[in-house]
Amino acid sequence: MSRIESITVTPIAFRDPPLLNAYGVHEAWALRTIIEVYTENGVYGLGESYGDEQTISQLQAVAPALVGMDIFNLNAIRHRIAEVVEQPDPQSGLEIAPGTLGATTVPRIFSAFEVACLDLIGKLTGRPVCDLLGGKVRDSVDYSAYLFYKFERHRFTDDTWVDKWGEALTPEQIVAQAKMMIDEYGFGSIKLKAGVFEPEAEIEALRALKQAFPNHPLRIDPNGGWSVETTKRLLPLFEGGLLQYLEDPSPGKEAMGQVSAATDIPLATNMCVIGTFDLKRAIELDAVQVILSDHHYWGGLRATQDLAAVCKIYDIGLSMHSNSHLGISLMAMTHAAAAIDNLTYACDTHYPWQEEEVIKGGKIKFENGSVRVPDAPGLGVELDREALAVLAENYRTCGIRARDDVKEMQKYQPEWSGKIPRF
Amino acid sequence: MSRIESITVTPIAFRDPPLLNAYGVHEAWALRTIIEVYTENGVYGLGESYGDEQTISQLQAVAPALVGMDIFNLNAIRHRIAEVVEQPDPQSGLEIAPGTLGATTVPRIFSAFEVACLDLIGKLTGRPVCDLLGGKVRDSVDYSAYLFYKFERHRFTDDTWVDKWGEALTPEQIVAQAKMMIDEYGFGSIKLKAGVFEPEAEIEALRALKQAFPNHPLRIDPNGGWSVETTKRLLPLFEGGLLQYLEDPSPGKEAMGQVSAATDIPLATNMCVIGTFDLKRAIELDAVQVILSDHHYWGGLRATQDLAAVCKIYDIGLSMHSNSHLGISLMAMTHAAAAIDNLTYACDTHYPWQEEEVIKGGKIKFENGSVRVPDAPGLGVELDREALAVLAENYRTCGIRARDDVKEMQKYQPEWSGKIPRF
Repeated sequence: MSRIESITVTPIAFRDPPLLNAYGVHEAWALRTIIEVYTENGVYGLGESYGDEQTISQLQAVAPALVGMDIFNLNAIRHRIAEVVEQPDPQSGLEIAPGTLGATTVPRIFSAFEVACLDLIGKLTGRPVCDLLGGKVRDSVDYSAYLFYKFERHRFTDDTWVDKWGEALTPEQIVAQAKMMIDEYGFGSIKLKAGVFEPEAEIEALRALKQAFPNHPLRIDPNGGWSVETTKRLLPLFEGGLLQYLEDPSPGKEAMGQVSAATDIPLATNMCVIGTFDLKRAIELDAVQVILSDHHYWGGLRATQDLAAVCKIYDIGLSMHSNSHLGISLMAMTHAAAAIDNLTYACDTHYPWQEEEVIKGGKIKFENGSVRVPDAPGLGVELDREALAVLAENYRTCGIRARDDVKEMQKYQPEWSGKIPRF
Repeated sequence: MSRIESITVTPIAFRDPPLLNAYGVHEAWALRTIIEVYTENGVYGLGESYGDEQTISQLQAVAPALVGMDIFNLNAIRHRIAEVVEQPDPQSGLEIAPGTLGATTVPRIFSAFEVACLDLIGKLTGRPVCDLLGGKVRDSVDYSAYLFYKFERHRFTDDTWVDKWGEALTPEQIVAQAKMMIDEYGFGSIKLKAGVFEPEAEIEALRALKQAFPNHPLRIDPNGGWSVETTKRLLPLFEGGLLQYLEDPSPGKEAMGQVSAATDIPLATNMCVIGTFDLKRAIELDAVQVILSDHHYWGGLRATQDLAAVCKIYDIGLSMHSNSHLGISLMAMTHAAAAIDNLTYACDTHYPWQEEEVIKGGKIKFENGSVRVPDAPGLGVELDREALAVLAENYRTCGIRARDDVKEMQKYQPEWSGKIPRF
């Protein structure tokens, strides 16, 4: 009943708007992988992970080694993965998404299968995934409006698709984007992806947001785009409670520790603390006051709970990071967040930026910025096989095999380096 | 199906030999509580906890507030307990068993119900408890031979019962006790409860054990009975690999930190780190290198896993502490230890010192010092209701309502204070 009979790993691609960040700009297609784990009785569980070539090849290489294993013995599955997965140099991989670095190999590959197994266990036992994590402490999970500077459309593609969000390069356009997103989703917090323009210009956008949404907590994330000196120079501009937290102003634990020592504003990160291996030093340096967890590279939903236990001991805040993703990941995040009592910040999600879906019923609905925790068994979502076929065909034809925001930006600005900190 | 319909809390007492420690001597009866949680369909889950009056009254006061709750929502059950349980002064309670201190109230009371709910969830889903904790990483769990100095028999009781172990007041008698216990149980590690005699005399017993069992790792636990100065004076006597670890030589994190700074011998504790609230400071001081977890006061089996996650990050060893207990606790310990990959030391257990049982089939069997992790649903043990009735009658008639090793020792030595450190 609970042995793995087969695993399907399907790379997919879906349209992604030209969102700007410190590294460059999103390409026209975002990549993901859909994992289906089947038990002997034909029941299946779903996972969703990164779609870069390295992750896909690791998932595909590991999958056959898991056939015959018991979905309940996740510890044994993790050990098997650690044995068979090729572990590259810890620093190798995709710097733009820290979760794809070599250092996160085992937790990242395990996570994709863990979520699928938990979905399966939920289905076999008739319980939602949050019940397998100790039970929900909230009925819905808050997400934040994740704003991006962006071009109106991809300029270097034959594709005629244009997203609905329009250009956002000025404070006014950012406020308009926020209004549009909050009208549709009801988000109660706002995050601005920054590191794109001169910091003062981005802080001007923050001020415009504060004026338009005086009761919405604000966050800004320059993705390590500011040096320690620059950040220290900017700190007075955040005074008076402008920020709920300041995410990754400068790159690395040491730099974050230096900034942290200079301010009372909580610092958050998804860049310098990306695995348990980072925690000891980060805590020693008091480098961050909020960790943005991400089950995709922390090692799954239970590992996210382990992280929460550490955060509780050290009085570190906890929220969630997001890369471009679809509904399977959104539901996995929602079940984990529902079961973690000290996950008290609204979580990040790129979800509004994606129009496509791979689950039945299409896009998941938000109410007042929140996703309801489903009571259905497992994650509470089913695979739409027609949609999967379309997205898999996208992957085959889109020509992208690893996210490269830097190269994409060089099409617009040939001299672009994507090096951080730029300011 | 998974709502709590009723809860039964039954105080019990069973015979306990006159075991000596730094506080005094065990009384003739040890107290415990058996918790039965029933769901609507008549299935029940078992928990076992302390039997002091305070714990019993807390368990009984909380039980009605849990009726109607979902056994899968353990987070909600913990929150409910935190709301309704009376929380005394953190320092109040029974110093002899640190797990019964006021500071551990919520985790201690929750743990008793969590284990019962996990037993129930296992029964309802047809899975052993270890599968609810991520699956077993070992098929059996190693325990250690837990040696005690002891009198031959209780002198101040009308009872004619005499245990089978005989007197143990000299190194020769301790070696004889070890031989008898290892012959019967097959233990591969040895722990000597100390703090009873002059430290040099106890170390002589250790040396005699090393000679008799050269391949058995040794531990000694004076229960904080030695001052920092005394311990530092004794450290050279442990050189040459006599000890696997040194447990609680001196009382308190600061004292342990001072000893730790003076030696490479790993220090272990179940006294100065008894909850998550102790971890930050203990880590800061590098006070201990091994934590003896105990689900009864750490907050259950999943909380023990959380502790394991912290130990992994800080490279702290993990083992298990034990008070006098019966088979329900032994199986809960076994399932938790089976699912924790960094629980690599043989666990402590008082189990050989107890003759009685409350589960069907009588005493659990050990093979080569280990307990096999059962594949049966839940904990894998069932309640023997006749045995329970006998033990409950013991409780009603034994006259003891809270463990008091000090008072018992004063019957033998009227000037006895039980204060630590004594040496």
